[in-house]
Amino acid sequence: MKQVSLKELNSGTSAAFVAALGDIFEHSPWVAEAAANERPFGSLAELYDSLCDKLRHAGKSRQLAVIRAHPDLAGKAARAGALTADSAAEQASAGLDRLSEDEYATFHRRNEAYKKKFGFPFIICVRRHTKHSILDQLDRRRGSDVESERATAVQEILRIVALRLDQRVRVSDRLNVHGRLSTHVLDNLSGRPGKGIAIELLEVSKAGESRLIRRAVTNEDGRTDEPLIAGRPIPIGSYELRFAIGDYYAEAKAARADPPFLDVVPIRFAMAEPEGHYHVPLLCTPWSYTTYRGS
Amino acid sequence: MKQVSLKELNSGTSAAFVAALGDIFEHSPWVAEAAANERPFGSLAELYDSLCDKLRHAGKSRQLAVIRAHPDLAGKAARAGALTADSAAEQASAGLDRLSEDEYATFHRRNEAYKKKFGFPFIICVRRHTKHSILDQLDRRRGSDVESERATAVQEILRIVALRLDQRVRVSDRLNVHGRLSTHVLDNLSGRPGKGIAIELLEVSKAGESRLIRRAVTNEDGRTDEPLIAGRPIPIGSYELRFAIGDYYAEAKAARADPPFLDVVPIRFAMAEPEGHYHVPLLCTPWSYTTYRGS
Amino acid sequence: MKQVSLKELNSGTSAAFVAALGDIFEHSPWVAEAAANERPFGSLAELYDSLCDKLRHAGKSRQLAVIRAHPDLAGKAARAGALTADSAAEQASAGLDRLSEDEYATFHRRNEAYKKKFGFPFIICVRRHTKHSILDQLDRRRGSDVESERATAVQEILRIVALRLDQRVRVSDRLNVHGRLSTHVLDNLSGRPGKGIAIELLEVSKAGESRLIRRAVTNEDGRTDEPLIAGRPIPIGSYELRFAIGDYYAEAKAARADPPFLDVVPIRFAMAEPEGHYHVPLLCTPWSYTTYRGS
Amino acid sequence: MKQVSLKELNSGTSAAFVAALGDIFEHSPWVAEAAANERPFGSLAELYDSLCDKLRHAGKSRQLAVIRAHPDLAGKAARAGALTADSAAEQASAGLDRLSEDEYATFHRRNEAYKKKFGFPFIICVRRHTKHSILDQLDRRRGSDVESERATAVQEILRIVALRLDQRVRVSDRLNVHGRLSTHVLDNLSGRPGKGIAIELLEVSKAGESRLIRRAVTNEDGRTDEPLIAGRPIPIGSYELRFAIGDYYAEAKAARADPPFLDVVPIRFAMAEPEGHYHVPLLCTPWSYTTYRGS
Repeated sequence: MKQVSLKELNSGTSAAFVAALGDIFEHSPWVAEAAANERPFGSLAELYDSLCDKLRHAGKSRQLAVIRAHPDLAGKAARAGALTADSAAEQASAGLDRLSEDEYATFHRRNEAYKKKFGFPFIICVRRHTKHSILDQLDRRRGSDVESERATAVQEILRIVALRLDQRVRVSDRLNVHGRLSTHVLDNLSGRPGKGIAIELLEVSKAGESRLIRRAVTNEDGRTDEPLIAGRPIPIGSYELRFAIGDYYAEAKAARADPPFLDVVPIRFAMAEPEGHYHVPLLCTPWSYTTYRGS
Repeated sequence: MKQVSLKELNSGTSAAFVAALGDIFEHSPWVAEAAANERPFGSLAELYDSLCDKLRHAGKSRQLAVIRAHPDLAGKAARAGALTADSAAEQASAGLDRLSEDEYATFHRRNEAYKKKFGFPFIICVRRHTKHSILDQLDRRRGSDVESERATAVQEILRIVALRLDQRVRVSDRLNVHGRLSTHVLDNLSGRPGKGIAIELLEVSKAGESRLIRRAVTNEDGRTDEPLIAGRPIPIGSYELRFAIGDYYAEAKAARADPPFLDVVPIRFAMAEPEGHYHVPLLCTPWSYTTYRGS
Repeated sequence: MKQVSLKELNSGTSAAFVAALGDIFEHSPWVAEAAANERPFGSLAELYDSLCDKLRHAGKSRQLAVIRAHPDLAGKAARAGALTADSAAEQASAGLDRLSEDEYATFHRRNEAYKKKFGFPFIICVRRHTKHSILDQLDRRRGSDVESERATAVQEILRIVALRLDQRVRVSDRLNVHGRLSTHVLDNLSGRPGKGIAIELLEVSKAGESRLIRRAVTNEDGRTDEPLIAGRPIPIGSYELRFAIGDYYAEAKAARADPPFLDVVPIRFAMAEPEGHYHVPLLCTPWSYTTYRGS
Repeated sequence: MKQVSLKELNSGTSAAFVAALGDIFEHSPWVAEAAANERPFGSLAELYDSLCDKLRHAGKSRQLAVIRAHPDLAGKAARAGALTADSAAEQASAGLDRLSEDEYATFHRRNEAYKKKFGFPFIICVRRHTKHSILDQLDRRRGSDVESERATAVQEILRIVALRLDQRVRVSDRLNVHGRLSTHVLDNLSGRPGKGIAIELLEVSKAGESRLIRRAVTNEDGRTDEPLIAGRPIPIGSYELRFAIGDYYAEAKAARADPPFLDVVPIRFAMAEPEGHYHVPLLCTPWSYTTYRGS
């Protein structure tokens, strides 16, 4: 994906603007065309607001056209490799490109039921979700009515657009579309930050299967050098943090049992706000620990 | 297994005494025979001490004979169904009767190496261990010398005997051979015990596999009606307690996220003292929890 | 105060029964006289219920007579030493016999205002209160109406009677009139109960003055041998527990700062249920602690 | 006190340099004179190092002269108003200008004993201490020998100089002479920062008397807008933080007892590192709290 600067977008021709952003809305370059006339934009937020306005005030039939321009999630186009590059990357982010046959069948069945009821495909900003929360939403939203679903689909498209725009345009300001997960280990045995503690972050499915997302080691301040998640929405779902405090206290030669009472401490929690800031710290000794949603 | 009372053991003939307790020491009725002359015993502890004395002062060659009367752990006799009833039940308690072919081969290899070095089989009080801690001990003790290992084997036999005796004899006093694991949930949201919370206790292998040992639900006082483990030694190993606080707070209509930040809380810990008293409580809110080794 | 057994009360004459319990209701022996006819009582609870019934169904004018038979709290009769023995001890329990001139004046002024509005003295079961919560109640209840206050006064008299009866009669069953405060120290540095820790319990006034109620030292199990409060109602009010963990960790030679980060840990809390069971534990290290209302 | 910039100090005459910094060492302008020749200084740290070198390598007799140029702490010169401006402000920072007659006598007695043993006055960097920790140090250091005390006095003078220099010179870099105390309230009832909570910080004497140092209110993030202590060394001593969580939960309409179980939560702790960074957070619900030395 080629990045472009806001300055270039402002100073180039309309054609260049549409060449750069025409595919921000799935198969719908007319939105970028309409926005091109409102240049220059003072910030990425202004550009985004202009694009949003175009879709929001486009009228029902044009909105439906944009909605219908989207592929099924985990659908035939995906299997056939016929997705746009953006769609392909988005679906992959939630693992929709790696479904089992059973899962694929489940998606297919629910997509069809949804389309049958509403007359358009199910739209959701996939980067804010896990496979499981997408199926949850498919279930819940199928209970809704057509007008509400059209409004929800527009809203989800604008979320998709925000994320695509944020990746595409090189600017100093960022859109407020990113969540964050951080942690901190405080060693209550020494009254000091826990340094050098290996941490794993896993995504956990309802069936209890887990997938490693990230490894890190705490620094001098008991934190990881980078947040565990940053610069992207947090997929709604269940996670597990694992802290290897057994190795840490072995290194520190703390008095312990053999095997130690605590070794790898698992903290299992769900994140429900893709743009939220989650801080999940651990206060520990060889015999106790405390965790909480911090800030 | 038939239980007998201390009174019956004291008042019957020597032959009856030996009939009742002759197999307490594996294939070695002479120990019970020697102790029969010291009747009556004022308590089960006195009876046990008398039996211990007989083995401790038996001299090296008779001790070795008792040691060698024990079967291999997870060995050919076990596979052939040729164990004494006590040995069979003991090996089953640690899952040695359900090994995979790989595990069986591992046990076989280490048993042979041990026997080759020391000239007698590896003896351990299996009820105080898990499969994993037995293999650990096999490894560690292979580094020892013959004299130390003979002493250790005698000590382990006396532990086995204590547990067999405690099951066999009906008395008011118990030998101090039992561990205990209890828990307690305190709901810091309401300042009250957490009532009606589903709890699971699992044994966890090093490879991360888990086996459900016990289910329970907390009562009015936030405790389980019975301790999670009682009346038996706690096998040395890793365990996980799981507390379904998500369901509890849903029931209590507490303000939460969707999905809730905390749902099933796992506490992973190891128990290293088979006769220890472990109390592992949970202090929780929908957003935080604390656990510790209590008393 | 002479104790009497339930058996003696049941088997003696009516006159003996009234001699023993006639003063349980302040200057109103008729209540005991009426209950005497219903003997024998199977338990203290049955005896108490019988006495309660007599007052509850006595009609408005006899109830008012009993209410008016009570002295003012911290009033002239108290100053003149003209109280019944029970009333004197009760008022002393809340420190009403040791008021400053200002406090005495405050009580006098509020008592008079109350009597002026309702036509009878302010009745409260003093043993369930501190000086401060009595003044609080005087304020709150002055906002009530005459009928409600008469009902409340009857209820408070029955609370007073329960406590007098519980002290007076020697029985196996107790009335459910007693609160309890206990504590527990868990040392998260060692994973063991905190033994030998000096504890103080103080009553704290709104002005921040404190009065030592109890000293204790934790035992092997991290608890005090006796509950800090037991066998009596807990006066509603503010309290402070102080745990000398600095000395404890000095003794244990734990690594600490100089002066230590934590020395005497104060826990300030209020108890609002005189018959409640309060458990206020401390989980600590030299650098951290947790407390909560336990059970 | 007039501030001067590093640039001015570098570019002015030697005389101007000495005029600006001659009194940085008590009555000893020769130190500044010697350092003036080494200009220009690239940073405040370089200037400070140069000054330190001059005293460290001055030889025993000149060092003693500088030491003896200092006044007694809480001594006659202080009472007579004959201190340098810096000394006066420093002694006031620890309350030495507001001693009772008894305290004054205690200081006098210990100062004299110290001077009698060592032949020079007791020197300590007062801004790093409370009245109580100064007396502690007087006691401890009297047990030392002359050579050690001379070295300690030089070290303390260099600490005094660092603080004077940091106040006197306007620069972008600061010397590393400042401690920090911060706090944070996390409401475990809502999983959010505790906003709008009134906090008090008090200094507490050994006798239990307390002096209010600072009031603050937590902001949106559960922190105070400014650290509670910053930009100065933290006097070694005991402190108490008080968090008015009772009012906070009343505002939040949380279910509570009446009076509430927790109202004003006191956290009592000592700070032993004047240049340390202390973070003392509170995790709370209406029924529980946790605190710890954080980072």
